[in-house]
Amino acid sequence: MARQRNIWRLARRPVGAVAEGDLAYGAEALPELQQGQFLLQVLYLSLDPTNRIWMSDAEQYMPPVAIGEPMRGLVAGRVIESRKDGVEPGALYSGMGVWADHMVTDGQGLQPLALPPGVPLSLAFGVFGLVGPTAYFGLLDIGRPKAGETLVVSAAAGGVGQVVGQIGKIKGCRVIGIAGGPDKCRFVVDELGFDAAIDYRSEDVGARLDALAPDGVDINFEQVGGPISDAVFARMRLFGRMPLCGLIASYNDTSKDSSERPGPAVAAAWRQMLMRRLTVQGFIVTDYAARWGEAVQALGGWMAEGRIKTRQDVRPDLARAVEHLDSLYTGGNFGKLLVQVGASEDGA
Amino acid sequence: MARQRNIWRLARRPVGAVAEGDLAYGAEALPELQQGQFLLQVLYLSLDPTNRIWMSDAEQYMPPVAIGEPMRGLVAGRVIESRKDGVEPGALYSGMGVWADHMVTDGQGLQPLALPPGVPLSLAFGVFGLVGPTAYFGLLDIGRPKAGETLVVSAAAGGVGQVVGQIGKIKGCRVIGIAGGPDKCRFVVDELGFDAAIDYRSEDVGARLDALAPDGVDINFEQVGGPISDAVFARMRLFGRMPLCGLIASYNDTSKDSSERPGPAVAAAWRQMLMRRLTVQGFIVTDYAARWGEAVQALGGWMAEGRIKTRQDVRPDLARAVEHLDSLYTGGNFGKLLVQVGASEDGA
Repeated sequence: MARQRNIWRLARRPVGAVAEGDLAYGAEALPELQQGQFLLQVLYLSLDPTNRIWMSDAEQYMPPVAIGEPMRGLVAGRVIESRKDGVEPGALYSGMGVWADHMVTDGQGLQPLALPPGVPLSLAFGVFGLVGPTAYFGLLDIGRPKAGETLVVSAAAGGVGQVVGQIGKIKGCRVIGIAGGPDKCRFVVDELGFDAAIDYRSEDVGARLDALAPDGVDINFEQVGGPISDAVFARMRLFGRMPLCGLIASYNDTSKDSSERPGPAVAAAWRQMLMRRLTVQGFIVTDYAARWGEAVQALGGWMAEGRIKTRQDVRPDLARAVEHLDSLYTGGNFGKLLVQVGASEDGA
Repeated sequence: MARQRNIWRLARRPVGAVAEGDLAYGAEALPELQQGQFLLQVLYLSLDPTNRIWMSDAEQYMPPVAIGEPMRGLVAGRVIESRKDGVEPGALYSGMGVWADHMVTDGQGLQPLALPPGVPLSLAFGVFGLVGPTAYFGLLDIGRPKAGETLVVSAAAGGVGQVVGQIGKIKGCRVIGIAGGPDKCRFVVDELGFDAAIDYRSEDVGARLDALAPDGVDINFEQVGGPISDAVFARMRLFGRMPLCGLIASYNDTSKDSSERPGPAVAAAWRQMLMRRLTVQGFIVTDYAARWGEAVQALGGWMAEGRIKTRQDVRPDLARAVEHLDSLYTGGNFGKLLVQVGASEDGA
């Protein structure tokens, strides 16, 4: 009998939040290994805000997942069979994969994953897989932080936000996080060393910013969009920078075109950009693929020195991946969201 | 009897287009020269879109002109008396001044103006005074043009637009100008060497861009805002740049806050910036004061080689300055707009 695997496929394009039936989960025959391929047992699946983008056919930065195809996601796993030269069983790989417990792959989009001494797989994957380099390049290349500047990080307790704020502290910035709920706000201040946090669920973000940063904001590391973003943007200082990393508030948006969406007109934002000489720059971390090693080395060093800590939110059960994903858009996750696919940490 | 001068003062803040009575023109006693001051006979007054900003108290990049104060403007003139060491009668100066035929000044904001051989004062002032460096730094520093890229220039027949497009050609770009009316469109193509022009008064800008630049736009040198800007922005290519130089379409805008203005929400623009990794950067040419000489030298060289030509729209009579200014917002000017204040080109 052919071996089986469990896999999620995109059944139809979600409208608004992902609903029952948009993705289909089930067992399928595992494709046979061809020469040049290897079999990866997936140990962790990373759930990221961008997953929702890939399910839609709205404008995006890579082709959307086609209907009927396996759902795309970042994975970490262990090679359990190989017909590819240089790839040995037992080796760890991470990179672009699918929502499945096993993948047959030629290695395209995957890289060997080296675990720093004493760092568990989930942590190494969670930080170095995507969120660490995203934080590193977005903040340093686009945000260009200088000591003494004020940095605001939205989604501060999330995977990327945690790291952005801590790199900001390393660079001497005053760091204000925005997060949902008192637990997350306490966490980023008490555990991660942010200077302050704003609870967008219970506080007026603009008024709190006025109190915490009366001279304004130099860098807005933007992950959210919507009214929170507007409140920060209106308080940008002369020559401020806004690395535009994500717009999670809009990913489930069902309004068909921009004119249906509430919010200030482009004219107002353009005017602030002109008068204050702001820079807004969108980026996707894969644009920095050629410099990946630089980020991993720096982040690894800071983690080893205890200067970057991260909290992960590891959930069980691949079959519940859609439910777990939804928590990203409702603020239900607390830390980098991963699904543990294998039975144990190392898949053994 | 004290000597007199003619001068414009801001009487009240305009609402919408500048109206009769917003500025007051008349003769006043010329202040007496103090030690360290000199008397400048103003020969040319530059009229620029930003003048309207200075009359308002909306957010802007330098303090607005106070009610009752002389109207601020860029001027070129000749020293006719001096009590300042190192400033000799007969010398030409240009820089920040006031709408008047004579200024008593300590020289703050003014620089000596050197005329390249054979270049008349109006041309040197019109190009090197503000518009040339604006075009130079905005396009080269922020736009970062590469050979083969597509550059769109709005207000293409205006002072800055002419120079931007020609520098774009020097750098090997495909240059598309947007201007109002067939004469200006013919001018930028036939006289200045742009590759194409779109007449926003009679053509659908988006449809024409689709035809002229089916692969999209790499650089949008933005001076206008509003629907023309939206049409260009929606067609930006991956990694496109938008030097944000001006928003003339909104300077007479009377809607009190952004939510009253029609136009796409920020959410849509932010999404395009994210997915296409665009950079939008506001700038004001005075930010580049330390590098002024670099621009003047490069522009002077290109002008001497005949690679940059400019058309100027020189109007008579300081008393009609408000009327002339208005033509900027209605598209009535054709080239860099100057008022000839003195009786003759060189004030003699």
